[in-house]
Amino acid sequence: MSGNTFGKLFTVTTFGESHGPALGAIVDGCPPGLALSEADLQGDLDRRRPGTSRHTTQRREPDQVRILSGVFEGVTTGTSIGLLIENTDQRSKDYSKIKDQFRPAHADYTYHHKYGVRDYRGGGRSSARETAMRVAAGAIAKKYLATMGIQVRGYMSQLGPIEIAFKEWQAVGENAFFCPDPDKVPELEAYMDQLRRDQDSVGAKISVVAEGLPPGLGEPVFDRLDADLAHGLMSINAVKGVEIGAGFACVAQRGSEHRDEMTPEGFLSNHAGGVLGGISSGQPLIAHLALKPTSSITTPGRSIDIHGNPVEVVTKGRHDPCVGIRATPIAEAMMALTLIDHLLRHRAQNLDVRVDTPRLS
Amino acid sequence: MSGNTFGKLFTVTTFGESHGPALGAIVDGCPPGLALSEADLQGDLDRRRPGTSRHTTQRREPDQVRILSGVFEGVTTGTSIGLLIENTDQRSKDYSKIKDQFRPAHADYTYHHKYGVRDYRGGGRSSARETAMRVAAGAIAKKYLATMGIQVRGYMSQLGPIEIAFKEWQAVGENAFFCPDPDKVPELEAYMDQLRRDQDSVGAKISVVAEGLPPGLGEPVFDRLDADLAHGLMSINAVKGVEIGAGFACVAQRGSEHRDEMTPEGFLSNHAGGVLGGISSGQPLIAHLALKPTSSITTPGRSIDIHGNPVEVVTKGRHDPCVGIRATPIAEAMMALTLIDHLLRHRAQNLDVRVDTPRLS
Amino acid sequence: MSGNTFGKLFTVTTFGESHGPALGAIVDGCPPGLALSEADLQGDLDRRRPGTSRHTTQRREPDQVRILSGVFEGVTTGTSIGLLIENTDQRSKDYSKIKDQFRPAHADYTYHHKYGVRDYRGGGRSSARETAMRVAAGAIAKKYLATMGIQVRGYMSQLGPIEIAFKEWQAVGENAFFCPDPDKVPELEAYMDQLRRDQDSVGAKISVVAEGLPPGLGEPVFDRLDADLAHGLMSINAVKGVEIGAGFACVAQRGSEHRDEMTPEGFLSNHAGGVLGGISSGQPLIAHLALKPTSSITTPGRSIDIHGNPVEVVTKGRHDPCVGIRATPIAEAMMALTLIDHLLRHRAQNLDVRVDTPRLS
Amino acid sequence: MSGNTFGKLFTVTTFGESHGPALGAIVDGCPPGLALSEADLQGDLDRRRPGTSRHTTQRREPDQVRILSGVFEGVTTGTSIGLLIENTDQRSKDYSKIKDQFRPAHADYTYHHKYGVRDYRGGGRSSARETAMRVAAGAIAKKYLATMGIQVRGYMSQLGPIEIAFKEWQAVGENAFFCPDPDKVPELEAYMDQLRRDQDSVGAKISVVAEGLPPGLGEPVFDRLDADLAHGLMSINAVKGVEIGAGFACVAQRGSEHRDEMTPEGFLSNHAGGVLGGISSGQPLIAHLALKPTSSITTPGRSIDIHGNPVEVVTKGRHDPCVGIRATPIAEAMMALTLIDHLLRHRAQNLDVRVDTPRLS
Repeated sequence: MSGNTFGKLFTVTTFGESHGPALGAIVDGCPPGLALSEADLQGDLDRRRPGTSRHTTQRREPDQVRILSGVFEGVTTGTSIGLLIENTDQRSKDYSKIKDQFRPAHADYTYHHKYGVRDYRGGGRSSARETAMRVAAGAIAKKYLATMGIQVRGYMSQLGPIEIAFKEWQAVGENAFFCPDPDKVPELEAYMDQLRRDQDSVGAKISVVAEGLPPGLGEPVFDRLDADLAHGLMSINAVKGVEIGAGFACVAQRGSEHRDEMTPEGFLSNHAGGVLGGISSGQPLIAHLALKPTSSITTPGRSIDIHGNPVEVVTKGRHDPCVGIRATPIAEAMMALTLIDHLLRHRAQNLDVRVDTPRLS
Repeated sequence: MSGNTFGKLFTVTTFGESHGPALGAIVDGCPPGLALSEADLQGDLDRRRPGTSRHTTQRREPDQVRILSGVFEGVTTGTSIGLLIENTDQRSKDYSKIKDQFRPAHADYTYHHKYGVRDYRGGGRSSARETAMRVAAGAIAKKYLATMGIQVRGYMSQLGPIEIAFKEWQAVGENAFFCPDPDKVPELEAYMDQLRRDQDSVGAKISVVAEGLPPGLGEPVFDRLDADLAHGLMSINAVKGVEIGAGFACVAQRGSEHRDEMTPEGFLSNHAGGVLGGISSGQPLIAHLALKPTSSITTPGRSIDIHGNPVEVVTKGRHDPCVGIRATPIAEAMMALTLIDHLLRHRAQNLDVRVDTPRLS
Repeated sequence: MSGNTFGKLFTVTTFGESHGPALGAIVDGCPPGLALSEADLQGDLDRRRPGTSRHTTQRREPDQVRILSGVFEGVTTGTSIGLLIENTDQRSKDYSKIKDQFRPAHADYTYHHKYGVRDYRGGGRSSARETAMRVAAGAIAKKYLATMGIQVRGYMSQLGPIEIAFKEWQAVGENAFFCPDPDKVPELEAYMDQLRRDQDSVGAKISVVAEGLPPGLGEPVFDRLDADLAHGLMSINAVKGVEIGAGFACVAQRGSEHRDEMTPEGFLSNHAGGVLGGISSGQPLIAHLALKPTSSITTPGRSIDIHGNPVEVVTKGRHDPCVGIRATPIAEAMMALTLIDHLLRHRAQNLDVRVDTPRLS
Repeated sequence: MSGNTFGKLFTVTTFGESHGPALGAIVDGCPPGLALSEADLQGDLDRRRPGTSRHTTQRREPDQVRILSGVFEGVTTGTSIGLLIENTDQRSKDYSKIKDQFRPAHADYTYHHKYGVRDYRGGGRSSARETAMRVAAGAIAKKYLATMGIQVRGYMSQLGPIEIAFKEWQAVGENAFFCPDPDKVPELEAYMDQLRRDQDSVGAKISVVAEGLPPGLGEPVFDRLDADLAHGLMSINAVKGVEIGAGFACVAQRGSEHRDEMTPEGFLSNHAGGVLGGISSGQPLIAHLALKPTSSITTPGRSIDIHGNPVEVVTKGRHDPCVGIRATPIAEAMMALTLIDHLLRHRAQNLDVRVDTPRLS
């Protein structure tokens, strides 16, 4: 209820600050009998891990996850799964200068007013470091979804002013940007190199897609699949916008253009992004998210301190110049967590539903 | 858990189908001692009500709400509030032709596969008629927020291709479009008249703003204020995109441009839209939502029936050619419900927080 | 979250005061495809209804329930079910005398301090009249459970000092006390007649049993089946104690006596009351509950008024001299609601579990 | 939703098996600014710890707890608190013999049928070892409640056939049984010594009391304070019965005897156990719980194996001959967790309630 839990039937509850001793999570509701090992989680953690290219923060964290419960003799038991990652590369002294200052566009000011006390080291709980546990939990969800033929994948679709058209999934894993077009990578690298020289940061757009979904996931009227997905994606640090399918392009569309007509062979388009009336249609589920530029930059900015006095803030420390670069695995995790939760919710109520109508895709 | 409840501490649970005998809601968690009468709810219900201009559906519903409990001698008692609106103008026979067909872009196909059975009359539970109860419940939330100096208002910011810049709140209540610029109204009317002649529909963009918020509302890390707001707004029928503050414009922004600098006199800009780290900053909370064009149009479209055979669908009946036109009060309601819920959540945990730092705005 | 909802997957949310215009409930999560009509609910409502014998309150309420949504062409659609019962026989003037007084052992004092305002007419929300909606919702649960071969039944096992050994189910429906031993009925009637002459009230013990359960229902470690059942039963007005199986008799039992040994033919005893480790074993689920004597009696009692002054309270109005007499259908409803909720929770997570071990009973 | 979380606003989510590497918990919703250290938790953990007398299991566990997040510079920050206890004295080989057998009265049979797979070592998740995390979390709740003048304490009120009348709090901490009457301790010791010679186990009754409560805690109608307390207490391993105040003695009481009359000086009795209409009255909150005898005994018992064949089971390993002996701190923890949760729930909704009527006690 204080916000550290995601999901209703497949729940993830997390703890941990940027510079505390460890991050942790409890995953509750995972079906029993799923083959699961720490290696299954490590893959996605490594994709999100800091310090793997010159374009991300240089903090070195192995992000080695341990499964402490809920798995016995290689399979899940249906009981709660405890996960733990120890922090190893904290440099808290970097933050002593700004402990009484509010960095512009950062959560310093709001945490201070909400709680009256805050762990200022590296942003404490507001640091994107907490997303490591989302990725670990999301990897469990992904593994279960895979057993049902559902695959969740994401890619970067825009970096600052550079739009990236989808080309191929293969390329996504082969560059530091999760860029689906290998020909675009040099342009992205040049842009980032210049950005660092400018001591500035930039936003990005990420797209996530789930394929192999059955129709029927989503609970009208408030917990529609797209509403819960929007919740999950918007809860990622720095996200300021979420679109499903055609998204904001819908505004200027006409009904005769937007509607996805159906034939016995399948849908003729997917402007809906795989959701109709808040329920999955069986088409690919498609979402886009906008991430704002990192607030921690070394270009001085005007702000105030906790006493209300004006100060000039320069954020030292190690930061991502574009938080969007490492956001793809996080977005995938939130989509996977949303989907597994709705899969369990759907089958709780609709176990016996049998319809003869062919499913389209 | 099956999706008919919104909120965690101030909860709204609803029932009712488009052509059933009545719509209802239970509001739980409203603080005691709030002066409340049916008239307080009727105002917003009348703003959402169908049939008040030629640009919306011609179904005539008085949408007269009754308060059945939770209010005694003019004030709330802290117990659950029962609300009821009777349906009076159903024409179910309009729907007999399409009971075995799936209208393209409508929820017919997904409800059928989710539940195996559905009330096809007017869309049943998937009809936007259910939003009447959101508006009724939202009016209670608005009234309580008003006692704390918080005001939630919305307006149409785009109709199809026509962008509408904000001009004044006064104008919003004086035209059928919730248009904040009186000079734009004739253009909107002409567009809608042509649209009806084209037997087509169109999308729209709505903007919602809350002013007077204290800093501190929102629960990191998953139940951020913006994440829960995105959930609420995306749960409205036809919504395909949600933005907070600068939204998708963030993607191309640099950090030095996006960050809202602070001085002792206040924030210098509001790209964040009033949320930092998922917590309200005290600046106006700003959200934008994209609504798709109505799927029910009389232009024939390709589809299938429940046996999988190809059919040509023409949706008769009475429909809004632009669902966005009546969406402003609904969006306000969802923002108000999100805010009151977070207000209660915040004070449950942080009752004793006192900070000396001045609050900015 | 403010307490008017029961269940997590099959949820019941209720509203309504003793002397308000109506009582209502929303049942969410009912599986689709269940044949359901108002007659299915009326049977249990009539069993709980006041005024059917001289041993209960003489308030006359038909308790006629209407289904306002969620059922289409005779079957549930999977969407939320709205229920409504109008109050018809309020006599609010009976209560004007005590509006500023706290009746001893009643909720007057605590509601006053909790909310600062209360509907004093007939106890307002604290009246047992709200249990009508529990019974209506419970009847839906019972009907679904019956389709799975699960039957929930209860009986009176003690009235004041008179202990009642279980004899036969048939008898339970044939007397005003839900007494399973027809030979005991005259003694109960004589006791109640004397009690009325004494202007006093008395407690009772009710027993509830579910048969036909599969093993596996219940969620360790906090939401054990017995823990959630205790929650449900203790939430009934006037209940002060709950036992599962042997209950408090366990305290003096030895392990060699208490343990229910197993053979391939089945369990050899059922001290556990059908729950092991918080999970149903497949044996009958057995619970007992203690109800305190009605607090509203005409024998004068010492109390204070809302200004803190001493007063002598005499509770006029129409009251049950033993609230336990009408409690059996309510207890059945709460057990049925607990079971259906756990049935849905179990299958959400454990859909694919197949074990070859024979099930015992 | 899968049962590993307790509470709604102050939530405790736990993981861990008897013979896994560690136990853990996440406490969410703790108000910020509470002074807290590991020493605050260790006191109660030591009271529950195994192996401190010859009357409990001889497994040696230091139960040393670490706080991994949510506390900064000695005070809580309002963010989630991660807790970890490493297991150090597992002897899993003790269990290889019974891995394919169902111990009578144990959770083996029900876990097997629920999940199809189970960690048989020491009972896995069904072991009372998980209660260590309840006690750790409960200690945080107790510390916060203490700042509001609320004190939660418990004692053993019956061991097998030996009833123990309350004498003094001082004595409770000075013997291995939490016995409030020092003169009874030799009798208890003699009973336990004989019990071990008999290779048997026995039940117990524990009583828990909270003093210093304000009136007003508890949410009608389903989440009454006593209903949620019954949930919490019944969720403790081996508990088969819960009473509030007079409990089952109510059944034979008359209304004129049971009702707790009020005078300006206070209540004249406390049969209600501190709860009226599900809401705290300000009197001491009193609950009693019945614990069954340990199922793990060395006296052979009849059972079946997972193939359905009859077997004779002898439970070796290290077990408590009376689980009730270590249950007092666990019961205190569950009462404290219930109270803090309701304290936060109450003030979320009723922040501004001010009544002039004097509070009684």
